[in-house]
Amino acid sequence: MLLIVGDMDLKSFIRDIHDFPEPGIIFRDITPLLLSPEAFRFATDCMSEPFVHSGIDYVIGAESRGFIFGTVIAQKLNAGFIPVRKPSKLPAETYSVDYDLEYGSNTLEIHKDAIEPGKRVLLVDDLIATGGTLAACCQMVNELGGELAGISVLIELKFLDGFSKLPSVQGVPTYSVLQY
Amino acid sequence: MLLIVGDMDLKSFIRDIHDFPEPGIIFRDITPLLLSPEAFRFATDCMSEPFVHSGIDYVIGAESRGFIFGTVIAQKLNAGFIPVRKPSKLPAETYSVDYDLEYGSNTLEIHKDAIEPGKRVLLVDDLIATGGTLAACCQMVNELGGELAGISVLIELKFLDGFSKLPSVQGVPTYSVLQY
Repeated sequence: MLLIVGDMDLKSFIRDIHDFPEPGIIFRDITPLLLSPEAFRFATDCMSEPFVHSGIDYVIGAESRGFIFGTVIAQKLNAGFIPVRKPSKLPAETYSVDYDLEYGSNTLEIHKDAIEPGKRVLLVDDLIATGGTLAACCQMVNELGGELAGISVLIELKFLDGFSKLPSVQGVPTYSVLQY
Repeated sequence: MLLIVGDMDLKSFIRDIHDFPEPGIIFRDITPLLLSPEAFRFATDCMSEPFVHSGIDYVIGAESRGFIFGTVIAQKLNAGFIPVRKPSKLPAETYSVDYDLEYGSNTLEIHKDAIEPGKRVLLVDDLIATGGTLAACCQMVNELGGELAGISVLIELKFLDGFSKLPSVQGVPTYSVLQY
């Protein structure tokens, strides 16, 4: 299966917003990319392509922008989608992880019965900064007995070196479409 | 274009959670449906099908469960996706709407430049209860000069009669896959 046909300058669909959410920060705004069905399709094809032969059973995406890419990529890989959510949003029994964000701190939850042990999981997000959200998701996959099969993001902030700070991804393929 | 092939008992993929988020409420948990790639594909095919010939330019989904269905349906309809988000999440200039929820109240925002005037918009959500979230989205479409072309949800809580409480959808096609 080859998903990607042609090429596209995806960075031209990312809008730089200066001083958001804090002074000195350049926010990479993905909403222009979402407005273009062709750019969104191409972006999610690129994010899926390295994992089409990885036997992915589930894609995990964290609330909220992880939902945007995770659901579409799950369908492309014929995998199930598992939402990781903010506290008190998931209705059944959950496993919780507290972690540090680029700005502040956060807690995320996953349904305890979401991952059948031994199943292969791909983590998906729009962006990796310091890697806090993805590290929390890695911890969830380990705790629930899943096998981490890869991480795919649209945007990697290279200067923050997030992938190398994820302790549990040694030997696990990681992929970013765009680097800043 | 015919998306739907075969039939599937989608209600068997919805889990009833009693007394969530409050005593006396039955919460319709869609996470088992998301875990099944076939059920999720069938559900989003059903939600898209009535609008494949409606010339949809954009799909709007509200944070967070609207993202899960909205992005996939936008791709099926070859439309752009516009996220409606909680306050202070969207980085560019926004239009804000305050509204009442089934439990409490809420504020949602949309980028002011998201909708090109005259473009046709489909609203998508996982569930319609009293219709507060969708009414807020209708108001946004009107304010930004878009044309409301339809509303599609997976689950309709019939006893709350949400669709009939949306003042701006007279003559606009509304659709739900599952009714409770």
